[in-house]
Amino acid sequence: MSEPIRASNGGIMGQTETTISSGFWQMYQRLVNEKVLPYQWRALNDEIEGAPKSHSIENFRVAAGMSNSEYQGMVFQDSDLAKWIEAVGHTLRYAKKQSASPSESVKQLETRVRETVQIVTAAQQPDGYLNTYFTVKEPDRRWTNLRDAHELYCAGHMIEAAISVFEATGDRKLLDAMVRFADHIDATFGGEQGKKPGYPGHQEIELALVKLYRLTGEKRFLTLAHYFIDERGRSPNYFEIEANEPQYRPIWDFDDGNHSYRQAHAPVREQSDAVGHSVRAMYQYIAMADLALETGDTSLREACERLWDSTTRRRMYVTGGIGSSRHGEAFTADFDLPNDTVYAESCAAIGLFILSNRMAALAGDARYPDVGERAMYNGVISGLSLDGTAYFYVNPLDVHPEVCDSSGTYEHVKYRRQPWYGCACCPPNIARIIASLGDYTCRTSGSTLYIDHFYAGAVRAEPAGGPIRLRLEGDYPWNGDLTFTVDEAHGTESTIAIRVPGWCSEAQLSVNGDATEIGTLTRGGYAHLRRVWSAGDRVRLVLPMPVRVIEADPRVRADFGRVSIRRGPLVYCLESVDNGRDLHTATLSSDPKFEVEHRPDLLGGVTVITAAGYTFDRTKATSSGELYRAVSESTHLSPCELTFVPYFAWSNREEGEMVVWVRQEGR
Amino acid sequence: MSEPIRASNGGIMGQTETTISSGFWQMYQRLVNEKVLPYQWRALNDEIEGAPKSHSIENFRVAAGMSNSEYQGMVFQDSDLAKWIEAVGHTLRYAKKQSASPSESVKQLETRVRETVQIVTAAQQPDGYLNTYFTVKEPDRRWTNLRDAHELYCAGHMIEAAISVFEATGDRKLLDAMVRFADHIDATFGGEQGKKPGYPGHQEIELALVKLYRLTGEKRFLTLAHYFIDERGRSPNYFEIEANEPQYRPIWDFDDGNHSYRQAHAPVREQSDAVGHSVRAMYQYIAMADLALETGDTSLREACERLWDSTTRRRMYVTGGIGSSRHGEAFTADFDLPNDTVYAESCAAIGLFILSNRMAALAGDARYPDVGERAMYNGVISGLSLDGTAYFYVNPLDVHPEVCDSSGTYEHVKYRRQPWYGCACCPPNIARIIASLGDYTCRTSGSTLYIDHFYAGAVRAEPAGGPIRLRLEGDYPWNGDLTFTVDEAHGTESTIAIRVPGWCSEAQLSVNGDATEIGTLTRGGYAHLRRVWSAGDRVRLVLPMPVRVIEADPRVRADFGRVSIRRGPLVYCLESVDNGRDLHTATLSSDPKFEVEHRPDLLGGVTVITAAGYTFDRTKATSSGELYRAVSESTHLSPCELTFVPYFAWSNREEGEMVVWVRQEGR
Repeated sequence: MSEPIRASNGGIMGQTETTISSGFWQMYQRLVNEKVLPYQWRALNDEIEGAPKSHSIENFRVAAGMSNSEYQGMVFQDSDLAKWIEAVGHTLRYAKKQSASPSESVKQLETRVRETVQIVTAAQQPDGYLNTYFTVKEPDRRWTNLRDAHELYCAGHMIEAAISVFEATGDRKLLDAMVRFADHIDATFGGEQGKKPGYPGHQEIELALVKLYRLTGEKRFLTLAHYFIDERGRSPNYFEIEANEPQYRPIWDFDDGNHSYRQAHAPVREQSDAVGHSVRAMYQYIAMADLALETGDTSLREACERLWDSTTRRRMYVTGGIGSSRHGEAFTADFDLPNDTVYAESCAAIGLFILSNRMAALAGDARYPDVGERAMYNGVISGLSLDGTAYFYVNPLDVHPEVCDSSGTYEHVKYRRQPWYGCACCPPNIARIIASLGDYTCRTSGSTLYIDHFYAGAVRAEPAGGPIRLRLEGDYPWNGDLTFTVDEAHGTESTIAIRVPGWCSEAQLSVNGDATEIGTLTRGGYAHLRRVWSAGDRVRLVLPMPVRVIEADPRVRADFGRVSIRRGPLVYCLESVDNGRDLHTATLSSDPKFEVEHRPDLLGGVTVITAAGYTFDRTKATSSGELYRAVSESTHLSPCELTFVPYFAWSNREEGEMVVWVRQEGR
Repeated sequence: MSEPIRASNGGIMGQTETTISSGFWQMYQRLVNEKVLPYQWRALNDEIEGAPKSHSIENFRVAAGMSNSEYQGMVFQDSDLAKWIEAVGHTLRYAKKQSASPSESVKQLETRVRETVQIVTAAQQPDGYLNTYFTVKEPDRRWTNLRDAHELYCAGHMIEAAISVFEATGDRKLLDAMVRFADHIDATFGGEQGKKPGYPGHQEIELALVKLYRLTGEKRFLTLAHYFIDERGRSPNYFEIEANEPQYRPIWDFDDGNHSYRQAHAPVREQSDAVGHSVRAMYQYIAMADLALETGDTSLREACERLWDSTTRRRMYVTGGIGSSRHGEAFTADFDLPNDTVYAESCAAIGLFILSNRMAALAGDARYPDVGERAMYNGVISGLSLDGTAYFYVNPLDVHPEVCDSSGTYEHVKYRRQPWYGCACCPPNIARIIASLGDYTCRTSGSTLYIDHFYAGAVRAEPAGGPIRLRLEGDYPWNGDLTFTVDEAHGTESTIAIRVPGWCSEAQLSVNGDATEIGTLTRGGYAHLRRVWSAGDRVRLVLPMPVRVIEADPRVRADFGRVSIRRGPLVYCLESVDNGRDLHTATLSSDPKFEVEHRPDLLGGVTVITAAGYTFDRTKATSSGELYRAVSESTHLSPCELTFVPYFAWSNREEGEMVVWVRQEGR
């Protein structure tokens, strides 16, 4: 291959890099670097006692002929390791930007990833094919069950891993191997005679091929991604065609009859509702948006906008979680958002966050990063324990431990994060998204630098006109007082466009101490500041963060008559450890006076909200012992103080109930 | 065998027969006679187009060598036919009491049941064994998987069928065959050397053996029932023992690890909470109560009372439905009663009704038939369409069709009754309980005749002292003005004890026109009238039926802040056909004035309740289009009239939403 020509997160996407250097996200990135990735390495090596075994690394050894043991795990087990490699790559890339002398933990990660790449590439077959399940177990059945076998999905993740490692270290070993694999895939799939006219049962390869195109400039990868997207859902359905081939062998029983589980029920441009497996949906929509960005394909862009609206205006939890049912880990119907039987997989929220970034680039409106912020601060990081060693796959908004323990209806809902999963897609996905967060802070478009997120750190961007460097400072999300200081600019006029979050109606903006008319500056949710910037220029954005009482659209059955508490980008919840049991009875007073206190000692340092309310007090309740009885005059409720903590931090103390949506007096 | 010595529903049980001759239940019994049983005959013969095939009768033909086709259906398919035979027996028995010249439909049922008995008995094996699955498919594996194979369950149902046919017709053919089968079972199971120390995975044989004992007077059947109950849940667990035998072959995957699904997690006397599969639980508790009645076993009685309380005070829906989760069709935790993901199987409510009868006999308190009434008028007959040809297996209290169609979470919840089921336990069970309802109206104990239920008809009872015949008249459940006229009495003092329903606090009672002090007469929920009764004596019980607003124990999460509407024994609901969509928003006004109107034209004739309330009106609502937003001053609700119909009659008109629990202003 030719020399890589541009960074995968630069180029047409107009993305930038932010080296996060303080505050909330530095804490999380440090956690990933020092705790999460070493822990996950042990998990991938089956070294965590009491946790489900991964066998992921061992499978590569087996496929490489380096071990005589057996393949174990899901058919897509390779992807767990791929996501871990990708996460290490991001961590190394940003660590190197931050310090010339890497820490011990960074050095150790670099050694491990180098060794891992040796094992992975050793498992690659002479023709470029790489998949340990098929290499070890069914070498004659490669590409015969695209619907279920996840070969293209695993390929996509390993391509993303290769790009990440290359960008961090310059080491081309895995990248070269994955380009060979991508070429093999290109030779296998397509409309031409002798190629398979198929596409993956689990989308992922498409977005990875666009990334590979962005890095290498090789158009054939973009074309192949476009082919997979264009072919999807066409009639006759490829999954039905392959199922009639003699080589076909089913892997999963799961099918919904019309392929909507895999978003192959209709051509992608005809899809209007977010349906089926929510992670598959997100990865598809990301690729569609990427292709629309790269090619200007209007019909793809319109489909993305429809599917975005379906997802975020009718089928998304207040936490940014998506997927209302465990059955198919899937979207269901508009406004069907049960808080207790919920799925809201961590991976799906991650997908929504990435999609929000692509949609922002495509459509340039702050409502996209508004949703991304909602997902990242709530439904994504809720999947990770504060000590970095336990994970939620499902992120409920209403949990009752006793019921989870006794009712199969809630078998998928855990009230404790788990050390690992048999299907462990989420843990390394959380690691890679946190490690790569600096890629999502800002974007450029023409001569404009868009600031989407307020992750404190140093931004390096190159809008038209020349490079800009600036620093974001502030204690977001706890405090909305943000400063952007220009460290380097070029001599021509350019725009810094700062997102004014949709949740904030009283934002104030000043430049070098001079207040601005933020309303007149704001278009599409961004305050546009255009001038010839100079080093030392300071922009101050103040986002007041009163506690806000939120309601859902009345058509959301599960939330009707209830409210959720929000401050800044954070959704809050009640936990039993603070508020006792029977949290379904917790009732906010009709005109609550909220007390806000930052508690550095609590949950790694969180802002706590308290307010007057009522709750059912079993000790004070008199009861006839009858389960059903005439309504009584008393409401059964006793006054109390309700203590709200950020949703992402729930279940880091003693076990108990948790609710996000609470009753309010008079509603 | 010796001549049967007493009616199965008489003797120690002290039960009586009521020939239902007018009103609500006559309509239902006529429906069963004329529509349901002929329809089910066609279903059992695979003649219903578009419905799942039963193959139940054909399986008997195959086992009898009368057909060369294959066995099809569930391993317990025999029981569907057995319950149908039992239902026909009850129908014939009461039809004969009512008229010397049977109707055409009765004659046809009698012919069909005679032919069916020929087929069933022809399938019996020389040693008495009868089970078509094992006879046809696995003759070498009889009794090798008691946990899953349902052989004893099917045996129990066929024993009940045989008793029913014998009592109706005097024909001993099936009864003799089933006594031979029971003897075979007795020779196979028990603590003695060479016998299997097992018990069934699905309880049913135990209560059937007690019935057979009551009919025949053969003590060995009582002893065997006692053995099965005593052995259950002992350690080491029999299901684990049999699973280690070389002949063992698993049938179902389902297991919860500790055998609580099958109530074999502990010896029955140590069981305190209603757990596991709710139908299994009910059939076990019925047998326990039967044995306590027959033997005076105090520890069994105490266990029954504990398990009754657990079921009805903490784990029962307001409709008398039980089983909160589809997973294991099972009980879950105290106060976990979700209205939408509910199971509430029709069979389980039937089991609870039968249990209420046994508990009343055991403990003589009206709170047992209170629950039985709740179940029968609501959660049992809700399983049957008003035209007799469609069935609910699951009886939800909150249904949203669009969500049922799109979310796997609600895959088990139907908003339309179904023509048949692959697992069709409920349809013939509903038929047999309605057909046998006259057995449950009254009971005798000593010289007291207890009137548990108000099914209009002629009671024939024989308390100590001599026979009593009386007529119950009234238009219950629509009207609470009830008359009991003595048609025959004996010359000694005896008591008529009439249940004063727990839902009624203003009951009035008069005897021959003289008002009584009902309060002083009432003990254990029954008004006791003791005298020398004479033909022509008239007792009038007036049960005022104001509309009542009911709340659940505050610990019931799903119902908190909501109310249900009840009138007399009937629970009411809202349907979209009367009230539009978005029924989750329906809100009763704070001080509702209820209008009550009997509508002979509606739903076969029902009393309808209307009241002022509010509901979300999509046409009037203004919306920002945002799924989540700051709470608005407006409640989004528009005034409306809410129309409530009896829950049992829901889903007999056009498809739509339904809710039982509604919001109330100010709660």
